[in-house]
Amino acid sequence: MQTVYSPRHAGHSGNNELQPGAIVPAFELPRRAELIRASVEAAGLGPIREPDTHDLSIAMRLHAPDYVEFLSRVWGLWQAAGRDGPAMPFIWPRPGLRCDVPPADIDGLLGFYSMDAGATFVAGTWDAVKSSHDVALSAAALVAGGERAAFALCRPPGHHAGARFAGGYCYINNAAVAAESFRLRGAGKVTVLDVDYHHGNGTQDMFYERGDVQVVNIHADPMVEFPYFLGHADERGAGAGEGANLNLPLPHGTDFGQWSEAYAVAATAIARFAPDVVVVSLGVDTFHGDPISQFRLDTIDYPLMGAGIAALGLPTLFVMEGGYAVEAIGENVAGLLRGFADA
Amino acid sequence: MQTVYSPRHAGHSGNNELQPGAIVPAFELPRRAELIRASVEAAGLGPIREPDTHDLSIAMRLHAPDYVEFLSRVWGLWQAAGRDGPAMPFIWPRPGLRCDVPPADIDGLLGFYSMDAGATFVAGTWDAVKSSHDVALSAAALVAGGERAAFALCRPPGHHAGARFAGGYCYINNAAVAAESFRLRGAGKVTVLDVDYHHGNGTQDMFYERGDVQVVNIHADPMVEFPYFLGHADERGAGAGEGANLNLPLPHGTDFGQWSEAYAVAATAIARFAPDVVVVSLGVDTFHGDPISQFRLDTIDYPLMGAGIAALGLPTLFVMEGGYAVEAIGENVAGLLRGFADA
Repeated sequence: MQTVYSPRHAGHSGNNELQPGAIVPAFELPRRAELIRASVEAAGLGPIREPDTHDLSIAMRLHAPDYVEFLSRVWGLWQAAGRDGPAMPFIWPRPGLRCDVPPADIDGLLGFYSMDAGATFVAGTWDAVKSSHDVALSAAALVAGGERAAFALCRPPGHHAGARFAGGYCYINNAAVAAESFRLRGAGKVTVLDVDYHHGNGTQDMFYERGDVQVVNIHADPMVEFPYFLGHADERGAGAGEGANLNLPLPHGTDFGQWSEAYAVAATAIARFAPDVVVVSLGVDTFHGDPISQFRLDTIDYPLMGAGIAALGLPTLFVMEGGYAVEAIGENVAGLLRGFADA
Repeated sequence: MQTVYSPRHAGHSGNNELQPGAIVPAFELPRRAELIRASVEAAGLGPIREPDTHDLSIAMRLHAPDYVEFLSRVWGLWQAAGRDGPAMPFIWPRPGLRCDVPPADIDGLLGFYSMDAGATFVAGTWDAVKSSHDVALSAAALVAGGERAAFALCRPPGHHAGARFAGGYCYINNAAVAAESFRLRGAGKVTVLDVDYHHGNGTQDMFYERGDVQVVNIHADPMVEFPYFLGHADERGAGAGEGANLNLPLPHGTDFGQWSEAYAVAATAIARFAPDVVVVSLGVDTFHGDPISQFRLDTIDYPLMGAGIAALGLPTLFVMEGGYAVEAIGENVAGLLRGFADA
C-alpha cells in the first residue's frame, strides 16, 4: 500500500484552541503526522511519496467558493488587523442571527466561516491545508488507477469541515473531496466510512441529500461529545440521499467488542449500498489513551479493525483524520493499515 | 425620575470573555453599575429603590422556557463537571448543524444556548440575572403606574440575549421583557429604542414578526462590528411586524452630528408608529473613550441625547445596557437622564 505524505503539513504549527474555559495549545500537532509517517515506514507498508498538485475545483464543488477563498486569505487579514498569535473567532452565526451576509472585518469573517474556536489559523495553515487536500486527491488517484488501497496521510484533518465552515481542527474536507473525485472519475457509488471517535459532521452534511455517496459514521454519541450538534441515529439522509446516511453513536466507555457490533451493522449497510470504492475517514482517537476522547480501544484492536475493513472487499482509500494520543498514534495507524494489507 | 437598582448584580463578578485570540477579564464589570448608581445619586435625579420580586412568566413568553431553566442550572452543571473558573462554551450550533436537540452535557449545552463566548457564568450570575430582570420589571411598573419616566439600572445587560441564547454579556433580555410587560398591562403599542453602540440583535429577533412592538436601533454597522450577524438596514420586520423594525447602522468614527441625523430618522419613525410608551435600551458605549467601541460621542453630547428622547413626548423607561469606559460611564448616563428630566 502506498502512502502519500507532504512535509508541508509542518507549517501548520503553534496553533491553539478553545477548550472549556481556557485557550490551550492545539492537541492536533505536527508531531502526529511525523510519528505516523515513521511508523508506516517502519512497518514496511510500501512506498511513501509526495502528492501531485491539484487545483481546487473539486473542493469548490463541496465547499462554497467564498469559503475556500477565505481560507487562503485569513492569515493576511489577521495580520493586517495588527494581530499576532493564531487567528481564532469569538462570535458565530447561530440560528436567530443571519448567515447570508459575510461581514467585512476579520473577526466577523472568522466567525462567519467557523463552527467553533478549534480550527485556528497560523502563517502556514493555508499551505498545509492545500497540501493535505493534494495528499487526499493524489492518494485517491492511486486507487482510481487500480491500486487495492492507498493511505492519504492528511494533516490537517478534514471531516468536521462543512460546506462553509471550519471547525474541530478541519478546514477542507479531504475525505469528501476524495469521494467526489472518485465520482468524477467514473465510480457510480462511493461510501465514506468514518471510524474517527468524533462524528464527521462536515462529510455528512455535504452528502446528506445525495444518493450516490453513502456516509456511515461510528462515533461517540453527540449528546455527550463534540461536535454535539450532529450525528444522531435519526439522521438517515434526505431527498435523493434518503437512507444513504447511517449514524451509529456509541456511549463513552465503548470497547472494541461494542465497537465491532456497530461495525457489523455498518458493514451490512455498506454491502447493501454496494459502492465501487470506500473512503475511510481514519481516526484513532477511539484509543483508550486519547487525551480528549472516551472510548476504550487498545493497540491490539486496530489490526482487527483493518482486517474488518478489508473484508468489505472494496478498493479502499484511507484518509487520516484524528487521534491525539501522540505516543501511540503511529503504532495504532500502522497496525490498522497492516491489518488491512495482510487480510 | 426614580432609579431601580439591586446590589445583587455584584455577584456577577470575575467573569471573563473571549476576545480575538485571547481570554480576557470581561469588560462588563460590577464597578460599572456602582459608578452609575453613584452618579445618579450625585446628580439628584430622584429616589433610588430596590426592585420587587417578579416571576419569570413574562421572560418565558420571549425566551424559550428550557433556556431560562438552563440559565438557572448552568453553574451547578459546570461545577459538577469538576470545572473552576467561569463557564464558557467552545462550540456553537451554526447552520449546517442541528439546533433542535439540546445535548446532555454541560459543554454541549453551553454552546447550544450561546451565540458567542462573551456571556460567561460564575457562581453569582443567575442571581444577578434574575435581579436585573426584576429591576427592569419594577421600573416598568413605575412608568405603567403613571410616572413620566424611570431608570432600570440593570446589570447584566440584556439586548443581545435572544429567544434561546446568551451572548455579548447578556442573558435575559431585560428591555424586551419590560416592553412585553407594558403590553400585558394594557399598552397598545410599545417602541424599543436601542441607542447602545452595538445592535440589539436579541430584541430585534424577539419582536421581528410582531406589529405591536416597534424596534429601532442606532448602532455600529454590523459589517464591521459585533454582533456582525444582524442589524443591517434591510431588516424591516416580517409578517405582522413588516415595517416595525428600523436599523440605522453607522460607520466607525461616527460623531454626535452624524448620530443625531440618524436619531432624527428614528424619531420620525417612532412618531409615525405612535407608541403608548418607549423603552430605551441605554448604552453609552457610543462614547469616544470606550475601550471596545469606535464612535466619537463626548460627555457633553449625552444630555442632548436625553433631551432628544424627551422630545418624543412619551412615557419612557430607560433600561441600562452597555458602556465600558468605566471612569466616564456614570457621568455619561447621569447626564443623559438629567438632559431628559430637564427637557
